[in-house]
Order: sequence, then structure tokens, then C-alpha cells
Amino acid sequence: MAVFPFDIHAREGKARTGVLRTPRGDIRTPAFMPVGTAGTVKGVYMDQVKGTGADIILGNTYHLMLRPGAERVKKLGGLHKFGGWSGPILTDSGGFQVWSLSKLRKMSEAGVEFQSHLDGSRHMLSPERSIEIQADLLGADISMQLDECTAFPSTHEQAKSSMELSLRWGRRSLEAFGERESQTLFAIVQGSTFPDLREKSAISSRTEGAAGGYGGYAIGGLAVGEGHEMMCEVLDFTTLHLPEDRPRYLMGVGKPIDLVEAVARGVDMFDCVIPTRSGRHGQVWTDTGPYNIKRAEFSEDESPLDETISCEASNAYSKAYVHHLVRSKEMLGGMILSWHNIAYFEDLMARIRSAIFEQRFEAFVEEFRKNWRG
Amino acid sequence: MAVFPFDIHAREGKARTGVLRTPRGDIRTPAFMPVGTAGTVKGVYMDQVKGTGADIILGNTYHLMLRPGAERVKKLGGLHKFGGWSGPILTDSGGFQVWSLSKLRKMSEAGVEFQSHLDGSRHMLSPERSIEIQADLLGADISMQLDECTAFPSTHEQAKSSMELSLRWGRRSLEAFGERESQTLFAIVQGSTFPDLREKSAISSRTEGAAGGYGGYAIGGLAVGEGHEMMCEVLDFTTLHLPEDRPRYLMGVGKPIDLVEAVARGVDMFDCVIPTRSGRHGQVWTDTGPYNIKRAEFSEDESPLDETISCEASNAYSKAYVHHLVRSKEMLGGMILSWHNIAYFEDLMARIRSAIFEQRFEAFVEEFRKNWRG
Ligand SMILES: [Zn+2]
Ligand SMILES: [Zn+2]
Repeated sequence: MAVFPFDIHAREGKARTGVLRTPRGDIRTPAFMPVGTAGTVKGVYMDQVKGTGADIILGNTYHLMLRPGAERVKKLGGLHKFGGWSGPILTDSGGFQVWSLSKLRKMSEAGVEFQSHLDGSRHMLSPERSIEIQADLLGADISMQLDECTAFPSTHEQAKSSMELSLRWGRRSLEAFGERESQTLFAIVQGSTFPDLREKSAISSRTEGAAGGYGGYAIGGLAVGEGHEMMCEVLDFTTLHLPEDRPRYLMGVGKPIDLVEAVARGVDMFDCVIPTRSGRHGQVWTDTGPYNIKRAEFSEDESPLDETISCEASNAYSKAYVHHLVRSKEMLGGMILSWHNIAYFEDLMARIRSAIFEQRFEAFVEEFRKNWRG
Repeated sequence: MAVFPFDIHAREGKARTGVLRTPRGDIRTPAFMPVGTAGTVKGVYMDQVKGTGADIILGNTYHLMLRPGAERVKKLGGLHKFGGWSGPILTDSGGFQVWSLSKLRKMSEAGVEFQSHLDGSRHMLSPERSIEIQADLLGADISMQLDECTAFPSTHEQAKSSMELSLRWGRRSLEAFGERESQTLFAIVQGSTFPDLREKSAISSRTEGAAGGYGGYAIGGLAVGEGHEMMCEVLDFTTLHLPEDRPRYLMGVGKPIDLVEAVARGVDMFDCVIPTRSGRHGQVWTDTGPYNIKRAEFSEDESPLDETISCEASNAYSKAYVHHLVRSKEMLGGMILSWHNIAYFEDLMARIRSAIFEQRFEAFVEEFRKNWRG
């Protein structure tokens, strides 16, 4: 079962809602995956993550290969056991974080050599090593092909050669992944903001993945500075070329408005650190955008963060209390806000799924755009 | 009910076990009170604190009066509602932290003037104001008289005049506290390491508290640098002069060995920040002393922190995982260790209570001393 069954229950326009069936559990789509960077979703217990309605979390290959080390995670029973998450896990290939965090990168056809940002140790990440780490050592349910993250902005020529390298790496990733009973591999479409390159990348990946190779298709190289409008435009001309019957995953995105607009363009899966990272800084996410709980107006506000969400973080603490915790730099402030923000994102996805199922997603999007002040 | 019923169920030597009955719930003694500094036990949810077996928590007057402010806590429904803890709460008088944290203190017979360590704002803490904050504004179940924290070491003359000031402040605290249906006030015995001063302080407080005034007696001015042996000695000649039928509270103590030795000398209640503070730095407490989970030997240790303790923090995570979290400076590491350490301290108190009840506490103490390597 290298390709997980994907049942689409309803469509409205380009938007779809359904279930991706994995051996470790169903993923209701459109799905938001909380980021469990180094075997932990920062500041949130796994039971709490599960309780928000998250069906799947993401793990970061780059962080885990450096600490505690992929071989060590394997020795300790794999990432599910190590981190205490029994549902499906998707891992990234490590490529993006090598690009954004590591020092002294050296790119070649073989892969990327880099130095750890932690201790300067030298490592090599090739398509084959990335698959070994993700699928064999961490034990990810969904692995990602290694790709090159095209810089933004870049010329057509740069974007083309980068995209073509990712295609070649995709082929090697597929080869290395081989036949697996209960794990799958996703391709990554690159091509920056150029329609012809996105089309080439999508069609080539699709062709190579056709014979039961790729279990899904990710859209990479977005949310890197191109802006919301341009992101929507790229999605418009990219999802067009992706198979209708396979999940599409928009990597590293994003704000609530980005999720809504991307679903409207046919995307099924998302991941982002926004809920936890901004939660640690006092940000609370809502349908109208984020606000900071530190603002003086909340100092005596006895209402909960969001009483419509059935999560303890959202309805059991007063804004005044969380305001006090964050101002006092108390850990519990970041803990409650990270938990609440994940619950908000998961609740938003649930509302999106219902809206599509009930054929009122167009109205939902209109309403959401109207209210958004982000 | 200015004096809570205190039922002593068993005694062995000077040690006692029983229940202090408060309108907000029973406190099983000997009791360890986790410290909820500013309306939160750092890094631990109140449900988790409750689940460890803690019957009562402590709140800090100094922190709360500065932020969010005692009047504001009152406006928000009192400290129980604000912090989400429905059981009994004991608050300190604020005196100790004015002494250890604030700037520009000016002591006088009236009280202590100080500047906030947060913003330099000026405040006055008198015996009357301390009672107002604790009992009227925060709504503490057990308030403490304002006392002066005698410096250590100090001369007999210094310790005497400081102790006498605390006695006068105790009288004013009693007066200000007056008659209350469901709240009680504890006296604080001072006198540094001098037997005659401790005796004078204990007997005077006892005499003044006899007519149903003081609900309990605290021993202050210890764990300030005098060392374990001296602390035990001071307890020996202090508890002697305290009423048999009232709870005795050793303030700000301590390590497990201190708790065991103090119970053997007739102490019933304790508070300390050790479980959470040291937990945030990777320390794990055990019957043999603390160890740091960051040590390399734990990197692949799949055993839980302590499988004998029925707390998720103690038995649901491998040492290897917590080692990884702490090394990676992940919030979850401090969260799990703070939670586990509180569970360890509460489990220790439960074992102490059983040992006294079953008349095997002497053997328990012997065994504990023998194993302790702290
Ligand atoms: Zn993001
Ligand atoms: Zn202490």
C-alpha cells in the first residue's frame, strides 16, 4: 500500500473534502498538521494536540537527524513511540531547513552537504539518505522527496534549473523508497512563480508517480516572501496540473486566510508553526485575524479566548488570566495559547470540511474574506 | 471558624499524621504545598497539580500585589477563580519576598516600604495591608502574619529585636484579621538559631493565639543558609513549645531529606519551589537525591522517570525522550519534569503519612537517611 486510499466525499468548485486512509488512522481533509519539530509540538502535550481534532502531525527531518539523531530514534522504537503520537506522521525531507538553518551548505547533483547549526558537525543529505531517515529510521507514514528550495525571487533560468534538479531528486527518492506496505511518498512541485515551470514540474512528477509511485503531491517554494496574492495565483495554475484523485499538500502554509483561499484552489493538506510560535508570543488567532492578549484592554476581561471551541484552552481560562500569564512571562501563558491556537486552526478546518460537504463553501469563503483584517 | 478543625489520626514519636479540615477541602498532613507564585504553578496545569495528590497550593502575596495587583484579582473573583484552583490556598505575607526581591526597602515599626523589582513603583506593606491583600482581596483560606525575615547569620541582639518586631506585627495581624467564618491566620515563629528567642517567640505567639486566634504556627527564618543540621536542631527546640493540637508549617522547605527530618520533629506542612524550579533545569528528584536527566547515560534509557508513581509525567515518558527534550530546550521537558517532581514530592508525603499511620515511620526515616546521597 504505497498509495493510501483517498476518498473524496464532496466537491464544491475546486475545493474537496474527504478522508486519506492510512494504517495509523484516517486523515480528514482539508487537514491542518501541527508541527512537531523535534518530537514535540512545542509547549503542548500530545493528548492535547489529539484533543483539538488533529489527525496527523509533522516531524522535521533536519532537527531530528541532528538531535537526538535518526539512528537513535530508530533504536528507541521510531518517532511514533519516541514522541508519544500514535496517529499518522508526515516528515519533511530536511531540505528546506538545511536551506534556512544550517551553515556552509554545498549543493551538488548528489545532494547537499551542510554543517549543523547546533554544533558545526558535517552532514550529507541526499535523496537516498533523506528517505532512509524518514521512512526507515523515523518511520514516517508519509515521507517527502528531497527537493531544492528555489530562492525567491529568482530568474526563470535559476528557477528552471532548480526545479529540474528537484525532479531528478524526486526520481531517486522514488527509487530509494521502493515498494512499501504501509508507508507512502509525496512528490514536491517546484517552479517558483513561473506558470510554465510549475506545469512542467507538476506534469513530470505526475507522470513518474502515475504507476502507483507517489501517494500525493506537495506544492513547495511558496510562503517564502511572494505574498498572499501571488501565492493564490501560483496555486491557480499549479493545482490544475495535479491528479484529481491524490491529496495536494501546500507546505509551510499558513495564516487562516491562506488556508481558506488555498482550499478554494483545491489544496487538501497544510502545516505551519504559526499556532505555536505566535502563541508563545501572546498571539491569539481568530476568524478576523490575530490579536495580542498582552493588550491592556484584556487586563480585566473575564471572557474565555473562544467559547465556541470545545477545547479547555479555548474556554476554561479568562482572557484576563492569560493576559496576566503572558505579561508575567509564565510558561502557562504560552502553553495555553499554543494549545488554543492549534484548536482554532483545527476548528477552522472542521468548519471548512462541513461547508464543502454541505455545498456552502463559496459563501463561507466570501464571509471569511469579508471579516478578515489580518 | 477562624481555627480549622485539625484531626490527628496517628502519632509516632514527635511525628503526626492527620487532616486539617477547611471549607474548601481537607488537607492531609504532613502536606507538601506546591508553589503557585503568580496564580500558576510554573509550567504545570492545575488539573495536573491536583492529580499529583496536592490538597493545597501556596500563592505569593508579593508577586500578586505587584502583578496583576491584589485589587484586580479581587475584581476578577479572587485568587481561586483567577488561577483555576478550587481547593484551599495558603498565601505568604509578602514579607520574605520584599526582603529577597525588592529594591530600596525601608523598615519601620509601621511596616516596610519598598520598590517593585518589576517597574520601580513604590509600595507599603504593613501587617494590616498584608491581611487585607491576603484575606480580603486574594481570598486566601490560610493567611500568614507579616513578619520580619531575620538575616542569617545575625547576633543575638539583632535576632531578638527582629523577633520582637515580628511579635508586635503578629498582634496587629491578628487584630486586623478579626473574626472570620471560613478563613484562618497562622503565626510565624522567628528567633534565628537561638533557643531562648525561638522559645520566647513560640510561647508568646501561642499565648496570643490561644483564644481561638491563630489557626496554626509557622516556623520562619529557616532554609536561609543555616544548613541541614542546624535546621534540624532549631526544629528540635522550637516545635517543643508549639501547641500539640495545631498544625505546624515549616516555610520554604525543602529537599526530600529536609521534609522527612522535619516531620520526625513534629512538622505538618511544607512549601517549596524546588520541584518546579529544578525541574526547569533538568533535575529529577528521587529518594536517593536529585539527578540531571541531561546526563549522557540517559540518552537511550527507555525506562520511565519513576514507574512506581501513578502520574502520567512519571510513567508515560521515557528518560531518553525527556533527556532529548531538555537538551533541545523544548518547553515540554520542563513541563514534564516540573509535573513529575511535584508528583514525587506528593508521593513522598503520602508514603510518610502511611508510615506514621502504620507506626513504621522510625524505620522509614532510617531507610531514607541511609539511601539519601543528596
Ligand atoms: Zn508557516
Ligand atoms: Zn525552598
